[in-house]
Amino acid sequence: MNPSEPNYISPQEDIRAVEAMILAQADGYQQDLKAALDHLLASGGKRIRPTIIIYIGRMLGADPQHILTMAAAIELLHTATLVHDDLIDGSLLRRGIPTLNAQWTPGATVLTGDFLFSKAAKLAANTRSIPVIQLFTDTLATIVNGEITQMFNNRCRINRDEYYVRIYAKTASLFETSAASAALLSGVDQATTEKMSKFGNYLGMAFQIIDDILDFTGQQDTIGKPVGNDLRQGLVTLPTILFAESNPDDTAVNQLMQGDCVKNSKQLNELILAIQKSNAPRLALAEAKRFVELGIEQLADTPDGFERTQLVQIARFIVDRKL
Amino acid sequence: MNPSEPNYISPQEDIRAVEAMILAQADGYQQDLKAALDHLLASGGKRIRPTIIIYIGRMLGADPQHILTMAAAIELLHTATLVHDDLIDGSLLRRGIPTLNAQWTPGATVLTGDFLFSKAAKLAANTRSIPVIQLFTDTLATIVNGEITQMFNNRCRINRDEYYVRIYAKTASLFETSAASAALLSGVDQATTEKMSKFGNYLGMAFQIIDDILDFTGQQDTIGKPVGNDLRQGLVTLPTILFAESNPDDTAVNQLMQGDCVKNSKQLNELILAIQKSNAPRLALAEAKRFVELGIEQLADTPDGFERTQLVQIARFIVDRKL
Repeated sequence: MNPSEPNYISPQEDIRAVEAMILAQADGYQQDLKAALDHLLASGGKRIRPTIIIYIGRMLGADPQHILTMAAAIELLHTATLVHDDLIDGSLLRRGIPTLNAQWTPGATVLTGDFLFSKAAKLAANTRSIPVIQLFTDTLATIVNGEITQMFNNRCRINRDEYYVRIYAKTASLFETSAASAALLSGVDQATTEKMSKFGNYLGMAFQIIDDILDFTGQQDTIGKPVGNDLRQGLVTLPTILFAESNPDDTAVNQLMQGDCVKNSKQLNELILAIQKSNAPRLALAEAKRFVELGIEQLADTPDGFERTQLVQIARFIVDRKL
Repeated sequence: MNPSEPNYISPQEDIRAVEAMILAQADGYQQDLKAALDHLLASGGKRIRPTIIIYIGRMLGADPQHILTMAAAIELLHTATLVHDDLIDGSLLRRGIPTLNAQWTPGATVLTGDFLFSKAAKLAANTRSIPVIQLFTDTLATIVNGEITQMFNNRCRINRDEYYVRIYAKTASLFETSAASAALLSGVDQATTEKMSKFGNYLGMAFQIIDDILDFTGQQDTIGKPVGNDLRQGLVTLPTILFAESNPDDTAVNQLMQGDCVKNSKQLNELILAIQKSNAPRLALAEAKRFVELGIEQLADTPDGFERTQLVQIARFIVDRKL
């Protein structure tokens, strides 16, 4: 569809419809759930996953109502995982706004996350597509499994393969499912669905790499966490991996290479500063850009037009976020 | 099907198949998830919900594989809610066996519950029935909403209607969905599905009333909690409601009637003792039996045979549990 057509609804209007659909999920339930959902939606977010779903769905001719429903399902699933993550990490702010667990008891926070999961699954079921529902439930399992693996294993370990597996589970899997479900709801052939799936996957990988770079280069008041927070938590991300590859003789790197966490805070601060000053963040950015270009390549055979142009712009926007 | 038929698989074999299906959900995931699922399954439980699904499905001629899958989905959903409940309540034992949160961090326990939700939803999706999947996700929302309502409202309040609403959400809704989904998977007419739905609902109401009686009359080492634990937590259940109706002049009752929790522990112990010694537990049992008979009435038009006899026995067993 072209924006010059009279019935064209801008993505912003679609996004508002998605947000209204999400909010309506609390109708008829305990009033504090409604308040929580209001708060979570008002806390913002770029709605990048719904936007990808909307543009792919439009580009490939899916039923608009099913597309909006799936966009709401994915955004709500994303929100539910954030609610439980913030509780587990004890985070009190997200995007500068108090988290649910900063205001509620742990019990109420766990239950609100569970409620959002149930409603996300309900919305996915409302698409009436069994493959989409199965993909959706698999993705939740993948995300949670990734978090448990991160919790029990792989702390303070420099391993690029493990890093890719982890960011796939953490972020790329939901981007992949977003794009794949939009294709599935469009009824396109399997080859196109696989390409859309890869498009989502590559964008998600890039998105997480950028997040991991911002953890080193971002301003504390922008990201709401101390600089180098991941490494302080024992989480080795791409900038650290790339720094280690160029500095195999660094003492702290050697310690990490042996799977030992750097616990001495002076040493940790020095390592974080060294990574910031090094070439590693730029190399990581190049890697994210490589993923974005791989993603854009997947769009080659899709219908040329406004939606495809927008999808390319979204892909490029991911690596142009404030670094 | 009749047990004398050569291909007849006993419900015990079906239940073992359901348990195997549940355990297989952790295949390919982080090993601690497998260990957690092993532990949770080994902690027992009567598998009453799967048994109801299996007998209704057989009685009404559903596809056996879909029935086993749904039985696994419901039992796993039940297990997931228990994992989060025990964490929220800080319970260290369930059925005399350490809870997951007694051994794991809160974070790992939250995530394990989430993983079980995702796999329960996946199993429900594997029945390939949209109405069943929608019913399933609605039920999770109902259960969680009930818990949040219990957390925020209705503490220390004597109100029979609120009590019924609460135990529907807490217990009867999942029994109802168990029975209704077995009917839906059998493809019977809507009237039969509604009767099966009511059968499950009434059995669930009876089941929770018995649990609430056992909280007063059970042995501490059997139920694993101090006697009168619900009331100690500010939760007014049927025995207390019935006691209050017969003893409107009791000081503690008067306090509860005004919505005030009884916080003085001497007064609380006296109230619990008075309820135990009163007619209230027997009156509550009569109420549970009334629900069971209402449930059995719903089976009147179903095929006469082994399965129906078993369903009647299960219904009666609910009120004959050790009191």
